Amino acid sequence: MMSEFDLIARYFTRPALIPAVSLAVGDDCALLQPRAGYELAISTDMLVEGRHFFQHADANALGHKSLAVNLSDLAAMGAQPLAFTLALALPNINENWLAAFSDGLFALAEQHNIALIGGDTTKGPLTISITIFGEIPKGKALRRSHAQAGDDIWVSSTLGDARLALSAMQGKLALEANALNQATQHLHRPTPRNALGLAVRDIAHAAIDVSDGLLGDLQHILKQSNVGATLQVDDLPLGAILKSTQPINLCHEFALNGGDDYELCFTAPSTKREAVQHAAVTSNTVVTRIGQITAARELKIVNAAGVALAIKANSYDHFIST
Amino acid sequence: MMSEFDLIARYFTRPALIPAVSLAVGDDCALLQPRAGYELAISTDMLVEGRHFFQHADANALGHKSLAVNLSDLAAMGAQPLAFTLALALPNINENWLAAFSDGLFALAEQHNIALIGGDTTKGPLTISITIFGEIPKGKALRRSHAQAGDDIWVSSTLGDARLALSAMQGKLALEANALNQATQHLHRPTPRNALGLAVRDIAHAAIDVSDGLLGDLQHILKQSNVGATLQVDDLPLGAILKSTQPINLCHEFALNGGDDYELCFTAPSTKREAVQHAAVTSNTVVTRIGQITAARELKIVNAAGVALAIKANSYDHFIST
Repeated sequence: MMSEFDLIARYFTRPALIPAVSLAVGDDCALLQPRAGYELAISTDMLVEGRHFFQHADANALGHKSLAVNLSDLAAMGAQPLAFTLALALPNINENWLAAFSDGLFALAEQHNIALIGGDTTKGPLTISITIFGEIPKGKALRRSHAQAGDDIWVSSTLGDARLALSAMQGKLALEANALNQATQHLHRPTPRNALGLAVRDIAHAAIDVSDGLLGDLQHILKQSNVGATLQVDDLPLGAILKSTQPINLCHEFALNGGDDYELCFTAPSTKREAVQHAAVTSNTVVTRIGQITAARELKIVNAAGVALAIKANSYDHFIST
Repeated sequence: MMSEFDLIARYFTRPALIPAVSLAVGDDCALLQPRAGYELAISTDMLVEGRHFFQHADANALGHKSLAVNLSDLAAMGAQPLAFTLALALPNINENWLAAFSDGLFALAEQHNIALIGGDTTKGPLTISITIFGEIPKGKALRRSHAQAGDDIWVSSTLGDARLALSAMQGKLALEANALNQATQHLHRPTPRNALGLAVRDIAHAAIDVSDGLLGDLQHILKQSNVGATLQVDDLPLGAILKSTQPINLCHEFALNGGDDYELCFTAPSTKREAVQHAAVTSNTVVTRIGQITAARELKIVNAAGVALAIKANSYDHFIST
């Protein structure tokens, strides 16, 4: 039978070829040094079977998503990804599962040129905890607290397809196989927006990644910046599958409160619209302007006719949601 | 009912007063910067109920131990502790449990003047994953791979009382209530040897913390340094409760293969014995010389008469051990 040390060696030891890492897997600690004048951005997430993913979830996709959600936190700070650690509880050693999981994980890691520098494996209910490290010039991080009245609010790509897939998988709505397949890609293989986060770092005032739902996540910015916002519901970039299969009210609900999008929501001065569009082009990421930050500390959602809609934030909470 | 955000705010938000931390809990990432010329030592551990601790384990002690095992990894590198992140899966929100857990965690954090800089909480089987950060002058880390033939082998404090407590709790042997209580402190409230690790950093060649058992952990040093060792079994510093209650063969077995000691094992040139003893005094930690590193790549255990004993390493493995 494979031991814990063999497991680490076989599936999780790959050479760390980035200059910031001087010692990776194999000692009591890893050693990491940001460049002079840079600080480290650090984020940690824990994914639990039955809570964040279904039992028997595709292992390759799970490897991808576990790292993607952490990369997304770095994107929201404008940090350049460097490295990560992985703590993994497994109910048993299934070599097929491990091979697929580590392939999914490292495929995304290699795309971002980041190294796995340390970890821990143990027996237990399937649980994945990643801590990720990025580098950022000191004082340049995109903060939740720096939005200003008058800022435009932008969001990357589209919203709602991940939630559409989840609802279909839970049997709450029906989708044709092809539509379900496409929507499921959004749920299981989110694309972290690191190139965009870096490109808007010196343009945007505030940013957050949309993990729990746009309204709930935007409210973190509003609260920490002591501002409000008006969102144009008709300007929301709806997921293509969502838009082509569901009634408009459900489209709005899933775009505003869906969760699992891992898109970037950021605010920037309205004088910087051209710069934002240029950053979008250079990072090969579509962005859409969806509203404005206001001095009045409330969150209003209006339609093209200017009529306020009664949509409440329904942010995902791991303890109170169903 | 308390939401995830309330939970973080109430139990896990304490001010970070250390200069390396410029942003802690409350944004997408924490920001951390080692001093110029220093690198970060990083380690991660995952503790799972039923595997690393019993169901209904004392929450305060669990908070202590979760952080202690990570501090111990920094000690083994000679790194100065700075900060840590916490990812926590909880089966439900039990405020008494949370208060006790966070008290145990922060009491030890405050002793070491380190800050909780980020985290994640979710619903799930009780699982605790901490990633810890320390600071070390570049190139000065104590490595497993740097032991040299002729080095003395040292270990801090005593070995075996934690395993004694575990065996008693598992019903494998009987202890009087008072002895059990004392031994249990070693199992549940290990003292990480950070002061010693810092004090021997410029003296020792190699170090590791004894978490899986002395023989198994020492073998990581031997393997990575391409050397062997001879251990003097009669020189092992036996836990006081172990020594006063158990036959000598069991004492040796628990000291060599017990695990959960979180003592520091390090090697240093024999010309540095005075310096090691001085470091022990300044760090207020007893150390004992227990053998020597040899060029011959085998691990021999001998008694005072020079007779080799047949004791095999029985390192704890989370997948193959019983």
